[in-house]
Amino acid sequence: MSQLHQIELPHPRGVCRLTVGIEALEAEREPLARWVDGRRLFLITTERVADLWGAELEPFLAAALDHRVLTVPEGEEAKSLEVAGDLWRRLLAEGGKRDSRLVTLGGGSVGDLGGFVAGCFLRGIEYVQLPTTLLAQVDASIGGKTGVDLPAGKNSVGLFHHPWRVVADTRWLGTLPAAELRSGLFEVIKMAFLLDPPLLDRVEQRLSRLLAGDAEAWVPVVAGAVAAKVGVVTRDPEEADERRLLNFGHTLAHALEGALGYRDLRHGEAVGWGMRLALRLSVTRGLPEDDAVRLERLIDAIGLPDLPESLRTQSEDLIRWMGRDKKAREDGIAWVLAAALGKGQITTAVPREEVRRELEVLLAS
Amino acid sequence: MSQLHQIELPHPRGVCRLTVGIEALEAEREPLARWVDGRRLFLITTERVADLWGAELEPFLAAALDHRVLTVPEGEEAKSLEVAGDLWRRLLAEGGKRDSRLVTLGGGSVGDLGGFVAGCFLRGIEYVQLPTTLLAQVDASIGGKTGVDLPAGKNSVGLFHHPWRVVADTRWLGTLPAAELRSGLFEVIKMAFLLDPPLLDRVEQRLSRLLAGDAEAWVPVVAGAVAAKVGVVTRDPEEADERRLLNFGHTLAHALEGALGYRDLRHGEAVGWGMRLALRLSVTRGLPEDDAVRLERLIDAIGLPDLPESLRTQSEDLIRWMGRDKKAREDGIAWVLAAALGKGQITTAVPREEVRRELEVLLAS
Repeated sequence: MSQLHQIELPHPRGVCRLTVGIEALEAEREPLARWVDGRRLFLITTERVADLWGAELEPFLAAALDHRVLTVPEGEEAKSLEVAGDLWRRLLAEGGKRDSRLVTLGGGSVGDLGGFVAGCFLRGIEYVQLPTTLLAQVDASIGGKTGVDLPAGKNSVGLFHHPWRVVADTRWLGTLPAAELRSGLFEVIKMAFLLDPPLLDRVEQRLSRLLAGDAEAWVPVVAGAVAAKVGVVTRDPEEADERRLLNFGHTLAHALEGALGYRDLRHGEAVGWGMRLALRLSVTRGLPEDDAVRLERLIDAIGLPDLPESLRTQSEDLIRWMGRDKKAREDGIAWVLAAALGKGQITTAVPREEVRRELEVLLAS
Repeated sequence: MSQLHQIELPHPRGVCRLTVGIEALEAEREPLARWVDGRRLFLITTERVADLWGAELEPFLAAALDHRVLTVPEGEEAKSLEVAGDLWRRLLAEGGKRDSRLVTLGGGSVGDLGGFVAGCFLRGIEYVQLPTTLLAQVDASIGGKTGVDLPAGKNSVGLFHHPWRVVADTRWLGTLPAAELRSGLFEVIKMAFLLDPPLLDRVEQRLSRLLAGDAEAWVPVVAGAVAAKVGVVTRDPEEADERRLLNFGHTLAHALEGALGYRDLRHGEAVGWGMRLALRLSVTRGLPEDDAVRLERLIDAIGLPDLPESLRTQSEDLIRWMGRDKKAREDGIAWVLAAALGKGQITTAVPREEVRRELEVLLAS
């Protein structure tokens, strides 16, 4: 077994331990078995993920008093009030109680949905996340953000509810489509650029092994990204300030996703496009051109798909979506920009006209 | 102006100040105006309550950048995922942001619903409760419990989300139907019996003025009940243990409400019936008969309406409802009983057969 990384995330209600490594679930078998001992356990996953990795959970499920597998749709479709409502009704019908346990196995959508369902069922039950996608391992599973989407806004309904544990096995990344790995990598380099430049080196140096889904190669990259995010979240548990640095690239990303109805573009890909816009706005405010070029080259090397043709002329529409984002304050759209490599800055002082101009250049590129 | 009572409730995320008195809202005008200054304000209420007391809020609403009044159905009907979903969509459509404010004006249902909507909108916005019913003033508005019902269980979906302030004007009680006052009084004596025997004296001594809706008479009773509940909640913010004492009478009450589909019986009335059952189980376990008789007499003096005929033969059905209650643990139904006047005890060791026997005696009475 390769090295196991354990990272602790203290939060207002306790500590969440995150374990990253090959066969990480097996390594955590004992504490997990104690956690479910004598209790009812609900596993939220998708049919596809259950087929791929469900068998690895058997010893864990068997340690509970009783368990039920509840499957939900793949991807963003799972993150609706309707799906959450169905799950709450099923938990109640299947005898769910305050001391029941919930586990999510899947990508960010399953984790966001499952965390929200756990957080609001009988005013909150404990849960564990087993993130199977890169995006979920390095980002979505960390920091207790949970929620579902409304038609008019992503993650508009949710709460902070930290999992008891997060266990991430990098072997799980091996079955991901290449586009999923690329998408998750945009989130990794987003964190590396503002928070951990050495992680950026690590990604640049082993990019081909990473894109090939090499589990060993991924361990230090996932662990590094987890540690970077944990560092930020620990210092700012409820996104008052520093945590907003994690939203580098997200102002445009959320607008793109909203305008597309969360279709046709993966979240990480939207972040890739969002970083390209944020880099342009950052250079105007003093980010050295070389640093911007370095990140742009890495984005290109990973491979950013084109935007749908329909968006090319939609700059005004996208700016309206930005104003509706929950990061928006009464005083305007908040931009997370790079002051320098390894240093973020947040500002609402970007003229709308400048945004429109840079966005149009980007959309035309 | 009569005496104003201010009680502070510290909780994991700050302090909630509760103000009780005649014209309490006017007394809190300045901090409330600062709280909404420059922000969007959403008022959740019912049409009836808005007609009765909405005008008193005018100066407060006018202090915000902008405000919207969102009306919801009366009573338990408001507490559904569907109503919550509609409100979230409206908040988003009306430009609600993370720093927007929400205020609830109404009874316990409006407060529970509004608190849940505030707690999950963009992962939580601040809110204030203005409870207009007795039940809401002495119980529902205190302690941060929020939520909605599922068809199969009351308050099955919700979270802890403390209001920033609670402001309770006892004049608001003057327009309540007599049955509402009686219902709320059952919650008051529930707290007095286990937590504050002098409050029980106070209620006994001024019962006729209270039932007549005398605002002055109510001030020390509401303030006493608020202080009793705040004391418990402060020592046990998330219902790990002592706070469960507040559920005296609630095991049967929730079962009655569930079996009746939350119709035909007010919550406090259900608690009145629940206390009668809990008293019988308590006497068997050592509560002096005199104390039980004293509380039973007060329940009679307030006036407990008969149970619907349909429930008379439903003891088994009611016991099944008890097992589904969220207070139930894997090890059985948790009973909150009285060990003595002013002293509660919690036990799961009540044989099902004994519950059925006592319940049948009660249903036949």
